[in-house]
Amino acid sequence: MNLLEATIKEIVPQDPSARARAHERLSQLTMPFWALGRLMDLAEDLAGMTCSSHPKTMRKAIVIMAADHGVVAEGVSKYPQEVTAQMVRNFVEGGAGINVLARLAGSRVVIVDMGVAGDLSPLVKSGKVVSKHMANGTGNIAQRAAMSRDQAIRCLEAGIEVARELGPTVDIFGTGDMGIGNTTPSSAIIAVLGGFQPAEVTGRGTGIDDHQWHHKISTVKKAIEVNQPDPGDALDVLAKLGGFEIAGIAGVILGAASMRKPVLIDGFISTAGALVAHRLSPHAADYMISAHQSMEQGHKKALETLGKKPLLDLDLRLGEGTGAALAMNLVEAAASILTGMATFEEAQVSQVSSQAIE
Amino acid sequence: MNLLEATIKEIVPQDPSARARAHERLSQLTMPFWALGRLMDLAEDLAGMTCSSHPKTMRKAIVIMAADHGVVAEGVSKYPQEVTAQMVRNFVEGGAGINVLARLAGSRVVIVDMGVAGDLSPLVKSGKVVSKHMANGTGNIAQRAAMSRDQAIRCLEAGIEVARELGPTVDIFGTGDMGIGNTTPSSAIIAVLGGFQPAEVTGRGTGIDDHQWHHKISTVKKAIEVNQPDPGDALDVLAKLGGFEIAGIAGVILGAASMRKPVLIDGFISTAGALVAHRLSPHAADYMISAHQSMEQGHKKALETLGKKPLLDLDLRLGEGTGAALAMNLVEAAASILTGMATFEEAQVSQVSSQAIE
Repeated sequence: MNLLEATIKEIVPQDPSARARAHERLSQLTMPFWALGRLMDLAEDLAGMTCSSHPKTMRKAIVIMAADHGVVAEGVSKYPQEVTAQMVRNFVEGGAGINVLARLAGSRVVIVDMGVAGDLSPLVKSGKVVSKHMANGTGNIAQRAAMSRDQAIRCLEAGIEVARELGPTVDIFGTGDMGIGNTTPSSAIIAVLGGFQPAEVTGRGTGIDDHQWHHKISTVKKAIEVNQPDPGDALDVLAKLGGFEIAGIAGVILGAASMRKPVLIDGFISTAGALVAHRLSPHAADYMISAHQSMEQGHKKALETLGKKPLLDLDLRLGEGTGAALAMNLVEAAASILTGMATFEEAQVSQVSSQAIE
Repeated sequence: MNLLEATIKEIVPQDPSARARAHERLSQLTMPFWALGRLMDLAEDLAGMTCSSHPKTMRKAIVIMAADHGVVAEGVSKYPQEVTAQMVRNFVEGGAGINVLARLAGSRVVIVDMGVAGDLSPLVKSGKVVSKHMANGTGNIAQRAAMSRDQAIRCLEAGIEVARELGPTVDIFGTGDMGIGNTTPSSAIIAVLGGFQPAEVTGRGTGIDDHQWHHKISTVKKAIEVNQPDPGDALDVLAKLGGFEIAGIAGVILGAASMRKPVLIDGFISTAGALVAHRLSPHAADYMISAHQSMEQGHKKALETLGKKPLLDLDLRLGEGTGAALAMNLVEAAASILTGMATFEEAQVSQVSSQAIE
């Protein structure tokens, strides 16, 4: 049994008794019943995920998976491929959106080279970037498979390894991505696994115009036609439509779920990874928290497929894990309500008066 | 000229040149244009409010205005009136929802007795509660005015005084409320100032059933019929339909706006106060940030009247300033993006390539 199979085997559903204990406590807190709404649902989920009425949320890590995409040759992005490596350097320097938002959240940022088409070796040597480099970008999916089935498994296992190494010092994971062109493979994966038409789940990425958008939809269609992925085989879909970083994200999610740790799913690309993880292990969804509703067309449909409702809706479309970083505060808030508030009895506050209801 | 008039005179629109400078910087940051969406709109707003490209957001205060309501005699709430004073004690002890969420946000909590029908003097003497006590609750608005016009002015000025005293040590304000029965006067104020039917803006407050809800709508209607407030005179509406704490909240907002400080408007009750502040000084809206979309029916309509879109939508219906506390993190995030991220030039990241667009 390989690491992927072993990990999937370890993923179990949320603990119903921890959920029940949390529900009981939440119902007695000094407020009208469930008056903190979705934060209380989340608190119950955190208890179920962690098997604890005192879920820990202090130690956080956003894992940014970076890789390049052969499909940029089709002109699907506004930015040139070299931006992927440049942005990885920007992450290391601390000047990107994710750096700012992770600092505010008190979260570490772990940058992983899953297959960037640029020389990151100095950053790897200095320990600033983790190397799980598979190749200098995927194959052009408009013409052939993104990667082999074996590479897909190795990428998933790379994500699992990253999560496992962080596991002992991390309470909450967040996923992030960097890869010029990666909305195209994400749309293709979501179309196939979710059963959608390419036009329904293909958006404008970094901001392409109408003409380019129609071309992008054609490219997604072509990728599916050329590769003929089997919708019932998530590994086949992942290998053919690809994204080394999408596979890495799916691996991080599986790794986190196997350790019973919550994982905040960032936006569109991360949700493509989450769909793959969910098809490989349906229980993995029990550990996923959707951070935000992306502006990218198709994200809403992908989340519905997963049965997830995002915490935030702020018209974000950046990726990098920025939505996950922003939502970490809400996860901490949910846990704090469960552990930090007084009950009616503890605070000597009167409960609902039957007299007042008439 | 009294304090209220002097304060209103000091409230000016956001600074267009600070907004423009912020917009310029935000447009050059290492991400696709405006890819952090509403956070970037908020960053521009913060610059305009504070006249600065480096808006400060570190020092925060939630002001909880507490008071009782004569209209509880009509059976409009599920909870007995004594809960108002009990919850004030819970705030002082630190066991309430707002305490937990304010701690997480790194925010002070300032509790003000605007007219609680209970003896809070030990808490006032020990400095834990600020006393601006007007009376032991308002008049029953189903039968008469909540307060006199003079009392309404004094409550507004009490809120202004609280904001002004905090001003030198506070960068962001948040509003909060406590007052059993206070969704009823809030609905009445919103109905009159917003031009809505009572049934459109009357919700279930702490969780009443259908029968009680219809009774509550009748009570709101009766309050408007009995008092005949002049919709063109916000002071008249406030005095007749009342809420000492609603007036206090309006005062805090006016005070914050006069000092060019952002103020996070919590939920339904705070929005009733915000509507009053807006009618007294239309420019005050330039300093308001809507923290969240409350579950309370009518909140959406009230926010639309103000032209505000909430940052969060988490099915909250607690009040106390809990939504404002949660949204503080997003305000800090917005300011951090403006001040902490690198530009394309600084980070040596390639901008949009004309070559890639074809």
